Amino acid sequence: MGESSANRRIIVSERPRFSVPNTKVFGLDTAPKPKPGDGEILIRTTWLGIEPYLYGRLKATSSQTTPVSLGDVMVGPTVGRVEISNRPDYAKGDMVQGFWGWQDYHVSDGSQVSKIDPDIPRPSYVLGALGMSGFGAYVAVNEYLKVKRGETLIFGAALGGLGQIVGQLGKMRGARTIGGVSGPQKVRYGEDVLGFDVCLDRKTKDFKARCEQEFSRNGVDCYLMSATGGVLQLAMPHFNLHARIAACGVMSFYSGVELPPGPDQTMVVFNEINLKRISVHGLVTLDWAGTPLHSQFKKEMKGWIQGGQIKVVEHIVDGLENAPDTLQGVFEGRNFGKAVVRLAD
Amino acid sequence: MGESSANRRIIVSERPRFSVPNTKVFGLDTAPKPKPGDGEILIRTTWLGIEPYLYGRLKATSSQTTPVSLGDVMVGPTVGRVEISNRPDYAKGDMVQGFWGWQDYHVSDGSQVSKIDPDIPRPSYVLGALGMSGFGAYVAVNEYLKVKRGETLIFGAALGGLGQIVGQLGKMRGARTIGGVSGPQKVRYGEDVLGFDVCLDRKTKDFKARCEQEFSRNGVDCYLMSATGGVLQLAMPHFNLHARIAACGVMSFYSGVELPPGPDQTMVVFNEINLKRISVHGLVTLDWAGTPLHSQFKKEMKGWIQGGQIKVVEHIVDGLENAPDTLQGVFEGRNFGKAVVRLAD
Repeated sequence: MGESSANRRIIVSERPRFSVPNTKVFGLDTAPKPKPGDGEILIRTTWLGIEPYLYGRLKATSSQTTPVSLGDVMVGPTVGRVEISNRPDYAKGDMVQGFWGWQDYHVSDGSQVSKIDPDIPRPSYVLGALGMSGFGAYVAVNEYLKVKRGETLIFGAALGGLGQIVGQLGKMRGARTIGGVSGPQKVRYGEDVLGFDVCLDRKTKDFKARCEQEFSRNGVDCYLMSATGGVLQLAMPHFNLHARIAACGVMSFYSGVELPPGPDQTMVVFNEINLKRISVHGLVTLDWAGTPLHSQFKKEMKGWIQGGQIKVVEHIVDGLENAPDTLQGVFEGRNFGKAVVRLAD
Repeated sequence: MGESSANRRIIVSERPRFSVPNTKVFGLDTAPKPKPGDGEILIRTTWLGIEPYLYGRLKATSSQTTPVSLGDVMVGPTVGRVEISNRPDYAKGDMVQGFWGWQDYHVSDGSQVSKIDPDIPRPSYVLGALGMSGFGAYVAVNEYLKVKRGETLIFGAALGGLGQIVGQLGKMRGARTIGGVSGPQKVRYGEDVLGFDVCLDRKTKDFKARCEQEFSRNGVDCYLMSATGGVLQLAMPHFNLHARIAACGVMSFYSGVELPPGPDQTMVVFNEINLKRISVHGLVTLDWAGTPLHSQFKKEMKGWIQGGQIKVVEHIVDGLENAPDTLQGVFEGRNFGKAVVRLAD
């Protein structure tokens, strides 16, 4: 069956029992290409956004969202092109976004999808800098971190979807930015291209010592927690009075099958929170979708990208069949930029 | 030497190496009764306020405040009566408050002391319900916990200076109040006299099971963390969306020489903070002294105490020499109410 007559789909075949979302939990199957009925559109998927939080959707223990049922198509944010439209409000060729998951085709009645602004540089940006990753960074910086000139902002996965934007927003606000990365190429790219003050390679032996050195320079005022929560323990003694933490997810926790060894440091952390008058806020970006802040973000971010104040780094992988490995790669730090999978142009 | 001609003082003689502030770190000495000069007043100490945070002032490792030097008088909030006044703005018999520490007498030039409102039921209340304990509860409830009708508020040391007020403020706002205490008498007093919905005795074998049972009933919306941080681990799975935590100090951490055994649960906590959109704020009450909120508190709390809406429970111990044991008792849960030491009437 050729691609034009079939719908290839990535299926969740088992629950993960691994420390990262191993590709073995997925299967590839082929269903008939769906046909749009009256009032429906057929969408050819062109891009998948690969997000760390998707790992949580694989697990039956996920406490806040419904896990994907075994045998179902893997969920995830998507971009596509309208191939057939039986609706007056969509035309063939329109680019749309939604959450129809890891498959070649999708039929929609027009709900749960929306058109993509044709003015943006690439449609895939709605999966990253102009999507939930970028918006998460924007909400964190504006609402919770309230990054100010001269302050120090630390963040992990500095080239990832969230990190690359939070760091650049921090720079725009005049903060000293310290990002965690994996590998020397990312250090150079983060510092030279994205303009972060310091990038620290968590795969080096002196990572801990370098963190201590950089965090102690002016202390830490803002911390976007998204990647390896272990940095919290390194940062804690260096937090300044009235520091702010945005807890945007704990990627290493999603993937970790075992907690770090003891003793239990929780009360050390809360003691610091008390003494330093630190605030911590849990942030789930989806809560802010459709708010006035979301409209403001789309407008501002588009302008910044068009004007070159914000650079977008995408890690593009070709082929639906490579989506599972791309997700695994995000947990292993193999992505060099926001991870997206391209299914078609 | 009689009390009238000498100044008995509690001296810090060594740094604590114990899990609670053992009385052995203090000594009692006797200095000449000080004489007030021109523009000075002589104050006879009548009450000492015994606060958990004072333990931190004993330790050289205290990160945010200067520790008391060895050989110096132990610090702490105080109430006294003017015995001699060489100042036009003070008269003999005026009741004043300050922070001159654990000694019979103090000479002041009028700075660092203030007159006590003669309308309040007892001067010692400025050390508790009308002082920093009560104000801490008020700030926590108004600024951070924002307790709402029908919500569930949990707090430890429910008969202590902070707990007794936070619980009653919670009741006034229509919340379900669950307080931790030590001993069956405190359970009855908390529930029957102070009107808390449930008091749980942390010294019973089924404390953990009772916490699970009560926390799971409607979930937990507000948590005033002040006493045994261990309750955090019990409460974590039961927090409702958008729950609020006020970190007012971690008493069990001040006193603990060893952290709880592993694994390290910190990332479990931050994962819950993220998923439940929880906010955490470190609160040091002194930061709010002198603010408009402080004036509002003094006025409102006085009215509530006079009107009987807020009941005040004091644990009164007589004798300066018993101050060290009273501080130790607070860490051992021996106080039945806000702990104060009476030196004179």
